[in-house]
Amino acid sequence: MKRIDVMECVSLLKEFDNYLILTHRNPDGDTLGSAYALKRALDLLGKKSMVRCNDDIHPKFSYLWENVDNSEITFDKIIAVDVADKKLLGEEFEAKYGDNVFLCIDHHTSNREYAQNLLLEDRAAAAVVIYEVIRQLGVEITPEIASCVYTGLATDTGCFMYSNTTPTVHRIAAEVMAKGADYTLINRLMFETKTLQYLRLEQMAVSSIESHFDGKCAIMTVTRKMFEESGASSSECDGIAAIPRKIEGVKIAVTIRERHNGSFKVSMRTIEPYDAAKICANFGGGGHNAAAGCEFDCSLNETKEKLLEVIKEEF
Amino acid sequence: MKRIDVMECVSLLKEFDNYLILTHRNPDGDTLGSAYALKRALDLLGKKSMVRCNDDIHPKFSYLWENVDNSEITFDKIIAVDVADKKLLGEEFEAKYGDNVFLCIDHHTSNREYAQNLLLEDRAAAAVVIYEVIRQLGVEITPEIASCVYTGLATDTGCFMYSNTTPTVHRIAAEVMAKGADYTLINRLMFETKTLQYLRLEQMAVSSIESHFDGKCAIMTVTRKMFEESGASSSECDGIAAIPRKIEGVKIAVTIRERHNGSFKVSMRTIEPYDAAKICANFGGGGHNAAAGCEFDCSLNETKEKLLEVIKEEF
Repeated sequence: MKRIDVMECVSLLKEFDNYLILTHRNPDGDTLGSAYALKRALDLLGKKSMVRCNDDIHPKFSYLWENVDNSEITFDKIIAVDVADKKLLGEEFEAKYGDNVFLCIDHHTSNREYAQNLLLEDRAAAAVVIYEVIRQLGVEITPEIASCVYTGLATDTGCFMYSNTTPTVHRIAAEVMAKGADYTLINRLMFETKTLQYLRLEQMAVSSIESHFDGKCAIMTVTRKMFEESGASSSECDGIAAIPRKIEGVKIAVTIRERHNGSFKVSMRTIEPYDAAKICANFGGGGHNAAAGCEFDCSLNETKEKLLEVIKEEF
Repeated sequence: MKRIDVMECVSLLKEFDNYLILTHRNPDGDTLGSAYALKRALDLLGKKSMVRCNDDIHPKFSYLWENVDNSEITFDKIIAVDVADKKLLGEEFEAKYGDNVFLCIDHHTSNREYAQNLLLEDRAAAAVVIYEVIRQLGVEITPEIASCVYTGLATDTGCFMYSNTTPTVHRIAAEVMAKGADYTLINRLMFETKTLQYLRLEQMAVSSIESHFDGKCAIMTVTRKMFEESGASSSECDGIAAIPRKIEGVKIAVTIRERHNGSFKVSMRTIEPYDAAKICANFGGGGHNAAAGCEFDCSLNETKEKLLEVIKEEF
C-alpha cells in the first residue's frame, strides 16, 4: 500500500468529516494517547470522530478522554494509530474493520502496510508522528492534547529511560509540558502507582530468583500460587519480567510465569551480545535481540533444565 | 554572603587558575556530574582543578572521570557544587574547607549562603546551573561534558519522572544527547542496575509494610538485620524510600531506617495536600512539601506510635 508523508496525511485528514479511530488490542499509553490526541485535534477542526478499541481499557487512562464526546457516530473513513498489523486490531475488530482501514499512522518497523501509511520508523512513539501531524493541521496544542501526546512519549520510552529515547522525544516533551501537559499526574499514574498486592507478588517473585553461571543468568519464577497468595491481578504484571534483568552482572534474564492451564510462559531479556530471539527459537519462540519469549508444556523443573541446557552453550 | 548571577560566576571562574571542586557527602549523580562537568570545562580553558569528596564514591560513577587527570594540585580557590550547607561537605571536609569556600554553585532552596553563591532555586538539578555556566564559559560541550550534565539531570529528576522535571530539563536533555551524552549507558547504570543483595533487601522491606488509615498511610521499615541478612550495602539504598509511596491510594508514605547507633531515620513522602515538611517539623525534622525527614532516638515501636499519632490528625 501507498506510503505517504506528513503533509499528505494532513490533506487526507482534511478531506473527510467523520472518522473512526482504532487503537491496537491490549491498548497501551502510546496507542491511546495518539488516538485521543488525534481525536481532540479533529474536534478542534469541527470534524466528528470516535475512538474504539477491541479490548477493555484500563481505567488509569481515563484522563485521556476527559470532557471528550466519544459517542457513536456514522463514519466515512477508518484511521488506525500505532497498529502495525491489522491482526493487532484484535480478533473482532480485524474481522470488522481490518480490510477497510483508510489511513494508518504508525512508527513500527514491523508495519505490514495494510493501508495508506504514514510510517515514520525512526520515531520513538506513534505520539511523535501524531504530534507532527497535529502541528501541521494548524490546530492549537491544548493542555489536553499535550497530555495525550506526553502519555505516548513517556510510556513508549519507559519515562525517557529506554534506548529508543531521542533528542526529538525530549524536545517534544519540553514543548507539550510548556503547553500544559499534566506530567506530574501522568507520571504518577503510569510509572509510580502499584497496588500493595502487586508489591507483595514482586517480593515473592524476587525470593524465587536463582542465579546461574557465575551470576550471568538469573531465573525468576512467578507461580499461580504467588498470584493467589498476594492477591495481585495479572493485568498489572506486565513489567515483572524486567526485574531479573536489573540484577548487576546478569546477561540473560529469564522470567517463567505459570499459566492458568499449568503451562509455562518464558520471557527472556538479554544484554548484547546475547540474543534472546536466537535462544528462544530453540523452543519455537521468537522476538527481538534484547527481548523474546517461548512456551513450555512440561513441569517447572523440566522447563528450567531445558532452558539452562541451551543457555549454558552461550557462555 | 553575596548572591551572584551566571555571568558574575563566569567572571570569577576565569579569574583564577587552580581550583579545588568539592561535592557533598554521600555523593549522588547530580553533585558528581556537576563537579566533573565543571572540571572538564575548566580543563578546556587550560586551568587546573581537582574534584574531591569527603566520602567514598560508588564505582558505577567512574565514567564521569574517564580520561580525566584528577591528581593532587595546589589550588587557589575552592568551589562547592550542589552543596547547600557547609555541613554537607562531610565532617572532615567541613573542618578542613568549610570556612574557605570561594564559590558555591547550587539549586537548593535550603542553601545556607556560606559562600559567594550562584543559587538558582528553580532549577531541577545543580547540573542545570552548571550547564548554563559552561555555556557562558564558551567552551565546547564535548560528549564527556554532555554525559556529566545528563547524569545530573537524570538522577535528580528520577529519570524525568519526578514533579521537579521542567520543560528546561527536557530541553537540556535533548541538547546534551545531541552532543553525544551516552544516555543508554547512563540510564542502565543509574536506574536499571541493582545488586541481587539489594533486591533481597527490597523484598524484606516490602514484607514489613504496614497499612494504616484505610491505606492512606504506609509504613515500611528497614532494619540493620535486613541489611545483614540480605548483604546489601547502604550506599545502594537511597531509592528505597520511594517504595511505599508507589502503593495505590497511599497519601503519606513513611520509611523508617535503623541507623548503626540504633536510632531511627524517617523519610516521608506525601501527595498533595499532605505536607511532609509540616509533619516532620513536629519531630524537629524538615524538608520539602513532598519529601521530608526526621529522626528518633526511641524504640521502633515508639517511633511508629509517635508518627501515627501526628499523621492521624492529617486525615
